[in-house]
Amino acid sequence: MKKVDHIGIAVKSIDTALDYYIHTLGLELLAIEEVASQNVKVAFIDAGNTKIELLEPLSDNGAIANFITKRGEGVHHIAFGVTDIRSRMVELHELGVHLVDKQPKIGAGGAQVAFLHPKSSFGVLFELCDKSSKGE
Amino acid sequence: MKKVDHIGIAVKSIDTALDYYIHTLGLELLAIEEVASQNVKVAFIDAGNTKIELLEPLSDNGAIANFITKRGEGVHHIAFGVTDIRSRMVELHELGVHLVDKQPKIGAGGAQVAFLHPKSSFGVLFELCDKSSKGE
Repeated sequence: MKKVDHIGIAVKSIDTALDYYIHTLGLELLAIEEVASQNVKVAFIDAGNTKIELLEPLSDNGAIANFITKRGEGVHHIAFGVTDIRSRMVELHELGVHLVDKQPKIGAGGAQVAFLHPKSSFGVLFELCDKSSKGE
Repeated sequence: MKKVDHIGIAVKSIDTALDYYIHTLGLELLAIEEVASQNVKVAFIDAGNTKIELLEPLSDNGAIANFITKRGEGVHHIAFGVTDIRSRMVELHELGVHLVDKQPKIGAGGAQVAFLHPKSSFGVLFELCDKSSKGE
């Protein structure tokens, strides 16, 4: 794990929450995109040394919609930047970590991503986020 | 807000959780200390560009113990590094943010800290963390 690539935060409405992050906290919006495979709209915000990823559900289904229904808005996951995500997944599996995903998925910005189950991680949903195939 | 100083994570036992963070995730332990004013033991872990702060309640009372009882282990807060925390608190108050603390408290490492109420922050407990009086 080389660094925290971003902190994922589930919100009901990016339009509403952005005003707080930009005008109240004084942070800068980097990009907004839709990730159809995960049924969410995301906004990346520059937090200096890392990024905040706001996640808004695009329908009443999907992981983020379910999270908000169960727990309300709030921190959803913490993403570690990695290289060679498949090797990291094998290593973690061999160390007994329960992986949510058997294979990497394509996440925001075209990164390859995979999640570690919170039951393995003392209640935290960690994401592995590999942008190395994109030259980053 | 100049950067994310640390991500605070509530755990039942630092001894138990540390093994996961150090040996499974491959991160490095920086320091362990007790913060009597907040009734917690904390462990700081180097996460590359920021830190992870594990928080273990020292008794059945206090914010972290209550958090774990209500929500289980998991992400408790996100701390922004700031300078001149009192001015930041006044600015945020004037922008309509509900501050949990009227005055800064002394947190881990002797930093001055204050919390923004999650109701103002779309479900996220943000901390302001000012180490500038310590020359950092």
